[in-house]
Amino acid sequence: MIAMSIESLPDRPRIAVVGPGAIGSYYGGRLVQHGHDVHFLMRSDYEAIRGAGLRVESVAGDFRLQAEEIQAYNDVAAMPKADLVLVTLKTTANHRFKELITPLLHESTIILTLQNGLGNEELLAELFGGDRVLGGLAFVCINRLSPGHIRHSDHGLIKIGGYQRQSTVLLEQIAGMFQESGVACQVLENLAVGRWEKLVWNVPFNGLGAALDLATDELLASDAGIQLVRELMREVVDVAQLAGVRLGEELIEKNIQKTRTMGSYRSSMQIDRRLGRPMEIDSIIGAPLRVAQKMGMDADKMACIYRYLVVVQESQTI
Amino acid sequence: MIAMSIESLPDRPRIAVVGPGAIGSYYGGRLVQHGHDVHFLMRSDYEAIRGAGLRVESVAGDFRLQAEEIQAYNDVAAMPKADLVLVTLKTTANHRFKELITPLLHESTIILTLQNGLGNEELLAELFGGDRVLGGLAFVCINRLSPGHIRHSDHGLIKIGGYQRQSTVLLEQIAGMFQESGVACQVLENLAVGRWEKLVWNVPFNGLGAALDLATDELLASDAGIQLVRELMREVVDVAQLAGVRLGEELIEKNIQKTRTMGSYRSSMQIDRRLGRPMEIDSIIGAPLRVAQKMGMDADKMACIYRYLVVVQESQTI
Repeated sequence: MIAMSIESLPDRPRIAVVGPGAIGSYYGGRLVQHGHDVHFLMRSDYEAIRGAGLRVESVAGDFRLQAEEIQAYNDVAAMPKADLVLVTLKTTANHRFKELITPLLHESTIILTLQNGLGNEELLAELFGGDRVLGGLAFVCINRLSPGHIRHSDHGLIKIGGYQRQSTVLLEQIAGMFQESGVACQVLENLAVGRWEKLVWNVPFNGLGAALDLATDELLASDAGIQLVRELMREVVDVAQLAGVRLGEELIEKNIQKTRTMGSYRSSMQIDRRLGRPMEIDSIIGAPLRVAQKMGMDADKMACIYRYLVVVQESQTI
Repeated sequence: MIAMSIESLPDRPRIAVVGPGAIGSYYGGRLVQHGHDVHFLMRSDYEAIRGAGLRVESVAGDFRLQAEEIQAYNDVAAMPKADLVLVTLKTTANHRFKELITPLLHESTIILTLQNGLGNEELLAELFGGDRVLGGLAFVCINRLSPGHIRHSDHGLIKIGGYQRQSTVLLEQIAGMFQESGVACQVLENLAVGRWEKLVWNVPFNGLGAALDLATDELLASDAGIQLVRELMREVVDVAQLAGVRLGEELIEKNIQKTRTMGSYRSSMQIDRRLGRPMEIDSIIGAPLRVAQKMGMDADKMACIYRYLVVVQESQTI
């Protein structure tokens, strides 16, 4: 599909944001605020944005974009081809990759997914060629208060890395673009390490938190809870090791300690559960569980949570 | 502790009800309504009952008892010794058996527990001698709307049986007493079979329902949910078999079918969870799990739920 390695972006790249919920609106909005050429593919927020623009309350500084400053679309067919596609879809919509991304691609378009969990780069690579795929992790507390109205309440760092190859120049260029737009962005030496490290937190606090409908402090309120969280984290570390990713031993206790300082925090998956929305079960629990199964490891704690989450999710069809 | 087998109760036995929540108030109230000599040991409802008596809305006929018709106590030391002690405490209070029951016993007092789950007769027998212990199962939908105000919304059958021995005359006498008071009561040939049969329903619908905070119809809304319920029931049937209790194969599908007809029903344990009250984790999940472990069986589905429920319970201390 593409002839040779893409080593860099044009000076003022045309950027498409696919799936602007809170994350896409925030990061895309920051890029617009700093003069970048950003085109948003929207669905539920389209009318609100076309009417009243985007309003962001942010710990890094509030800002507003007027409707006429935002290049918003509700149909991908109307969009121009892009040099960089930022994918911020919820992973529960990953089956729509082909339909939503294909029309945006020219032969050297770069695709950067900022989605949760495992398996997103793999799927993009399968569909569009691995050479153009980059991955990123967003460490950010952000919510959509209403259509076109975002609250960014904490953190905001993005860590990005290559998928099939490291693409250092390209990654530094994208990181620079974010940094100039007021978004902290680091280049990861190894994306897989970053992904698995984040899963160490996500599996217990998103997975168990959503299955039991408990916030972080509730999970850590008892020795029984701490032990369960610890064993789940241990399972993730063990699966990562089988997948060739060695995580530091100290990561488990560090994650628990860090989470204690967060107070009562509801993970995105717990919030999705409470609002009756699709949960990112597959990318956060299903994908690492499949790695374990493929490697012949009995990840019974993840397996139990996975089954429970499917039951919870499907109960919401009533 | 007691010299010989107790074969029957006096003609008009003095009855003590220990732990009248909704169940104790209802069954005890029916006995009072039909002229029996019943003494209630109360805690949270004591003041309300002393003031305004007991009000029962019941599918079997509403009734009221005036305050002066009810022999209520808030201190066991003030109570007379009884011929029959009905134990309707929540099993989370079983550590108080010695303190709450000992003062009520004379040498031939019979103790009948109507509590949930496994292990209640065992504990009573250990403390007070197995010869005087009987067990019963209450199949009833009942709630306390406020102190002294009960709503009995469905069913009501009690099944009673001997623990250490069958005591047929005694059991028939007690069953007759309930029946004459408008309460359906059957004598079980084998109490253990009755206990394990009830666990086949209780483990998934109380245990899983409380852990995931899902009602019966939500658990059965998907193939994934039905399969999980079925596997849990299968585990209970298998543990029962190891404990020497053979349950019919057909019990599993029968229980699932029966539950489908109940609509959206929240089990007592799910309601306890929602109200932040102690859940009967130990008698409903812990006790059968310990039987499995003692027999060397890997009851991993019950084990997972048990751990989750402990985490949920202890999260409520925040």
